[in-house]
Amino acid sequence: MSAAQTGTSEPARRATMGDIARHLGISKAAVSYALNGQPGVAAATRERVLEVAQEMGWHASSSARALSGSQTQVVGLVLSRPPDLLTTETFFMRFLAGVESVLSERGWSLLLRVIGDHPADEMATYERWWGERRIDGVILLDERYRDPRVDLVERIGLPAVLCGGPVKGVGIPCLWTDQSGDAGLVVQHLADLGHRRIGHVAGPGEFVHERARRRGLRRAAAALGVEVVTVEAAYTGPESEEATRRLLTGDAPPTAVVFGSDVMALGGVRTAAALGVRVPQEVSFVSWDDSQLTSLVAPRLTALQRDTPAFGRLAATVLLDAVAGRRPVRIQVPPSVLVARESSGPAPA
Amino acid sequence: MSAAQTGTSEPARRATMGDIARHLGISKAAVSYALNGQPGVAAATRERVLEVAQEMGWHASSSARALSGSQTQVVGLVLSRPPDLLTTETFFMRFLAGVESVLSERGWSLLLRVIGDHPADEMATYERWWGERRIDGVILLDERYRDPRVDLVERIGLPAVLCGGPVKGVGIPCLWTDQSGDAGLVVQHLADLGHRRIGHVAGPGEFVHERARRRGLRRAAAALGVEVVTVEAAYTGPESEEATRRLLTGDAPPTAVVFGSDVMALGGVRTAAALGVRVPQEVSFVSWDDSQLTSLVAPRLTALQRDTPAFGRLAATVLLDAVAGRRPVRIQVPPSVLVARESSGPAPA
Repeated sequence: MSAAQTGTSEPARRATMGDIARHLGISKAAVSYALNGQPGVAAATRERVLEVAQEMGWHASSSARALSGSQTQVVGLVLSRPPDLLTTETFFMRFLAGVESVLSERGWSLLLRVIGDHPADEMATYERWWGERRIDGVILLDERYRDPRVDLVERIGLPAVLCGGPVKGVGIPCLWTDQSGDAGLVVQHLADLGHRRIGHVAGPGEFVHERARRRGLRRAAAALGVEVVTVEAAYTGPESEEATRRLLTGDAPPTAVVFGSDVMALGGVRTAAALGVRVPQEVSFVSWDDSQLTSLVAPRLTALQRDTPAFGRLAATVLLDAVAGRRPVRIQVPPSVLVARESSGPAPA
Repeated sequence: MSAAQTGTSEPARRATMGDIARHLGISKAAVSYALNGQPGVAAATRERVLEVAQEMGWHASSSARALSGSQTQVVGLVLSRPPDLLTTETFFMRFLAGVESVLSERGWSLLLRVIGDHPADEMATYERWWGERRIDGVILLDERYRDPRVDLVERIGLPAVLCGGPVKGVGIPCLWTDQSGDAGLVVQHLADLGHRRIGHVAGPGEFVHERARRRGLRRAAAALGVEVVTVEAAYTGPESEEATRRLLTGDAPPTAVVFGSDVMALGGVRTAAALGVRVPQEVSFVSWDDSQLTSLVAPRLTALQRDTPAFGRLAATVLLDAVAGRRPVRIQVPPSVLVARESSGPAPA
């Protein structure tokens, strides 16, 4: 089975020299001469071949590889995030460790490109990698609203797994997280402690999982008669510090704040210390993500804990299944567990 | 200039179909037929071609790529470490962030393979990647004693940069760290505080930088009339906990311990807490590497601080220079700075 075949019903296939030859009604040798810049073919034919090759998405090495029928045994991953996220975003590293543990077992490699915040480059990179036969499939992280990457991988037949929020109506394999259920755990924990006004330092709303978290928090809060105020920030310490400052120095400051990541929660701890606001006596903090950081900081952070390396392992496994031609699946990632530590306590009287 | 050309005086080059044809005294077309499994060539010739192709290290796509003359714009990196090092070894992630920041600017990607502790697989991976024209160069991390990778990359003409200890007599670009100078900073700091017996929880001695650190510690200690006891451990928390326990419960426990990494130092803090040994009142701790972890733990850790992302940026820059054909350079990484925090104090009376 060719690696170009996916688990979807109509597998796409990359163009070969033979396809171009059939399309133009000329010999494969003539196509080869034209594409390799060798003599033996008329200038007009050469131009026509190059035109058609481009239209059909033919790339230099796809044909060579197609002949051998071998897989590249490489998985692609493009991060539309700044490179320093690798040091600041602990989620990513734990996810990557899980992916690598599966790839490592099977002798596969990961082709990684970090492109900053340029989603268009992300699309172009997948297309080129696939066309040049550098990868057998891709892991799509950070699902976006109306994510254009799903259309792309379906159109070009690139095996993929989408790791996102509550993924729906998508024909490729998906791993989805019940953000709403996780949000319910946080609100219940804080409501039980008597909090009635909860701040939310959220990541960017372009991500589906962030929208789902906001929705989940609002619903759970409404059911329990609690108010939620969301402030958006990038997934960095400094942006979170600033957002926390706005919340805590506003007119009606919340008595509890939930942060979109462990790194954001650490920013919140720094701001509280700078403002002289005691945690948890005056404000309770909850981190939406757990890591070794949350247990090192004082006070130790109450956090939603999930097995992120296992999430990465699952993503790699589902992708390799798709590469092998299995039917696309939609799998729910195991829900988070709320681990209560020192940073959350009774609401101040 | 071909990407196969390195900055060494006699650039190696990958075999082409033309090389095989010349070697056998037959036409390039015959070689092509033989290698592509097409008719038009005698069975005996086909076998001879396949034999010679293998001897000369010819791989399927190297010739196709050589025709186009294009670079892959991919840098290779193989880690002979377990995949979970990505979550536990903060050095690696900070280094990788630096590498990616340079690659990202130039539109390059990183081909990453994690293979556990199998140095032989590492060599085979470089050779295959280069032969299959998947990469333009490699970053060699964790220099080993009599490192066989240096011979390999020189032999096959693969551009490389070696990041290691005090690299000497090597014909490829090198980044070296003055481990001896860094060791001197640690010993001086502890000797100034009155310590006369220093424990050293070291990483594996197969790494050149670990040998250099031990040598540097011994020399600096001898010069100041201080004793050093080294205990070896893997770069993990649990192994460091066990090594620290051996040191602190031995016959003549040291009054200060230096740890090979931030993660190892955190292991030491856990062991001290478990044994009821107060830091720094009863034992001082110093970490050989700094990160956000060292400032989060209580007590905050005295640490050797270096700019690891800058080290990664330098490695990528030097490698891309080598890929572009510049002469190999040997560059010293800026020395570390000792940042005194709460974990080191006067030796107990």
